Amino acid sequence: MALIVQKYGGTSVGDTEKIRNVAERVARVKDEGNDLVVVLSAMGGETDRLIKLAESATENDPDEREYDVLISTGEQVTISLLAMILKKMGYPTKSFLGSQVKILTDRIHKNARILKIDTELINGELKAGKIVVVAGFQGVDDNGNITTLGRGGSDTSAVALAAALKADYCENFTDVDGVYTTDPNVYDRARKLSRISYEEMLELASAGAKVLQHRSVELAKMYNVPIIVRSSFNDDRGTLVTMEDKDMERELVSGVTCDKDQAKISVIHVPDQPGVAERIFTPLSERNIIVDMIIQNASIEGYTDLTFTVSRKDMEEVKNILYEVVKEIGAERVDYDEKIAKVSVIGLGMKSHSGVASKMFAALAGEGINIMMISTSEIKISCAIRRKYTELAVQVLHDAFELDKEN
Amino acid sequence: MALIVQKYGGTSVGDTEKIRNVAERVARVKDEGNDLVVVLSAMGGETDRLIKLAESATENDPDEREYDVLISTGEQVTISLLAMILKKMGYPTKSFLGSQVKILTDRIHKNARILKIDTELINGELKAGKIVVVAGFQGVDDNGNITTLGRGGSDTSAVALAAALKADYCENFTDVDGVYTTDPNVYDRARKLSRISYEEMLELASAGAKVLQHRSVELAKMYNVPIIVRSSFNDDRGTLVTMEDKDMERELVSGVTCDKDQAKISVIHVPDQPGVAERIFTPLSERNIIVDMIIQNASIEGYTDLTFTVSRKDMEEVKNILYEVVKEIGAERVDYDEKIAKVSVIGLGMKSHSGVASKMFAALAGEGINIMMISTSEIKISCAIRRKYTELAVQVLHDAFELDKEN
Repeated sequence: MALIVQKYGGTSVGDTEKIRNVAERVARVKDEGNDLVVVLSAMGGETDRLIKLAESATENDPDEREYDVLISTGEQVTISLLAMILKKMGYPTKSFLGSQVKILTDRIHKNARILKIDTELINGELKAGKIVVVAGFQGVDDNGNITTLGRGGSDTSAVALAAALKADYCENFTDVDGVYTTDPNVYDRARKLSRISYEEMLELASAGAKVLQHRSVELAKMYNVPIIVRSSFNDDRGTLVTMEDKDMERELVSGVTCDKDQAKISVIHVPDQPGVAERIFTPLSERNIIVDMIIQNASIEGYTDLTFTVSRKDMEEVKNILYEVVKEIGAERVDYDEKIAKVSVIGLGMKSHSGVASKMFAALAGEGINIMMISTSEIKISCAIRRKYTELAVQVLHDAFELDKEN
Repeated sequence: MALIVQKYGGTSVGDTEKIRNVAERVARVKDEGNDLVVVLSAMGGETDRLIKLAESATENDPDEREYDVLISTGEQVTISLLAMILKKMGYPTKSFLGSQVKILTDRIHKNARILKIDTELINGELKAGKIVVVAGFQGVDDNGNITTLGRGGSDTSAVALAAALKADYCENFTDVDGVYTTDPNVYDRARKLSRISYEEMLELASAGAKVLQHRSVELAKMYNVPIIVRSSFNDDRGTLVTMEDKDMERELVSGVTCDKDQAKISVIHVPDQPGVAERIFTPLSERNIIVDMIIQNASIEGYTDLTFTVSRKDMEEVKNILYEVVKEIGAERVDYDEKIAKVSVIGLGMKSHSGVASKMFAALAGEGINIMMISTSEIKISCAIRRKYTELAVQVLHDAFELDKEN
């Protein structure tokens, strides 16, 4: 007798046959006496199809309000199909759009944030014994305009609904059956974690693992909503994402990730004066270019080098911006390197144990992998390396920290 | 300086290229200084695709509420695409769903009727100089559920909006360039009418011509909204559907239609007692089977024959129903004939002129076409004939009333 929010991603609702499988899974959980709110994404590929339609109609410059009207149709299709299948199976069910619930957001089209969720309507339907199916990814602003929550936004819809309804937990069904110590495609000794903390999950997400939308984990952490990541194609237990607890601390490192979408930029021989870094990074952030790792060399004779990484797709724009900036600040030149990658080790355990960093550096050095940049947080250490060594580095680190073994 | 409601049907918005053509047409009318509300259908074929999806998901038994949630996505796609194209062209534009306007309907899913349209929001946007694009075919009931208006419902959305906004007229863009004296595919001497009365248009629609949804014409008549039927693929003037006036009365007959979707049923040797007809027709109407023409022979020795027509698709169900009824009322047998068609002549002029009927019968007889049933209204005469004579009958009648000539 629990209140459960289930979220099914695009591959889980890819066609009517798969939606029927979802219906059977939902029915089973309902039969066990639970109350159920089901959050759906659009059919896999559908959002991309709609985006292409918008781009082809407007030379890649669709109005953002109308873009949201368009792409929010994807979830409208899946929720109505699931609801009609469940009804046909004899389960009282009702679908709701973001605007019907309502899921109130700010006015930032394409990347809105949820402000408030009305729970009265849903609670009423649950009390009446109904299964409630809600369109993920979408909301409505205070003027009644449709908004969407950005890539992976259905994850956030589900966690926000779970928080607002005070659900017991949120099950996130996806095409992987849990959170792994590393990407099984990169290293076949990757092991599925039975649980992981919100903090580690956040670092995993920002380090390149794409299991859950970053914001959904932040929200789950804030409201302490347990998330179970599991596959809709089998009955495996999945991974519980939850609060840090004593058991977890035993694991020094819980995962290794890599991110090949990195490019390195070095501004060479910069006069080392106050405000120089600001003059480089402000124009980048104004164009929404996210700078990841940053290092500044020790100053020698009043000059320094500034090195940072950005997403590869932003390289051209960065070049254009820096062309002017470099002249203004009197730097010698800018070097660009698109052939780098980032590998990271993540673990709550490193908070209280030293030695993780040195073990990491030693493991990489043992294979002759040169470390080009280092950045650290409380529970993560990242190194920039040559891209061709990415898989090797992941495997070496996975072995070094014995991640294939249950702690 | 007029307020114009334009409606574009599915073939006019069949792909982004066609929607771009619509945008250019809309822009031209806006440039001339008019206020514009544009009502769109779904892309041609899209509604059928969504219906098939619903049917395949539910063994042809989709829940009606969820069905409406599903198929209303079709117009959501086209309105957002048109709005973003117009904005890209520099025209301030905003799209609205039925629920956003809002277009309040009753709760009859799949075939809802419009009860009320809020005009405040649209008037505000028009006053601000915006082009308003509204999703046709859809509304919202008093509980916030999405409803749809039935096949061709966008015609009704457009006329209802024109009435509520007190628009000067409603332009209905479709894949034909007006209303013809008969179907040009049946007779190449068909002539486009420059104007036609609401009454004649209603009879044309019920006699098988599918230019405008029947209900949209009823609504236009009730609120005296002039409708211009024209093509979105050329600049021809089209046909004005408007109030009856003196000019029109000169035309005895304005059109000839045919309907091949007819089947004839004869209940033979029925005891001629009060209530017998009721016992035949009540069970049919309870199953929503529409009976078109009905004739009853003069009673001979206390027995009579009852003959009527239904849509061919309803034949099997009619057979099942009558199987029992025939025994109960003591009729001898039922004869079925699926090889019939209905031809009709329509015209305001026949109200005040006799001789139309006799001219019609003579023309058909002249070609040896046997008349199996006759039914008449104030401005229409219909005859059931053998289906194989349909085209011949249309041509003969078109010639007899000289419809190829401007009156």
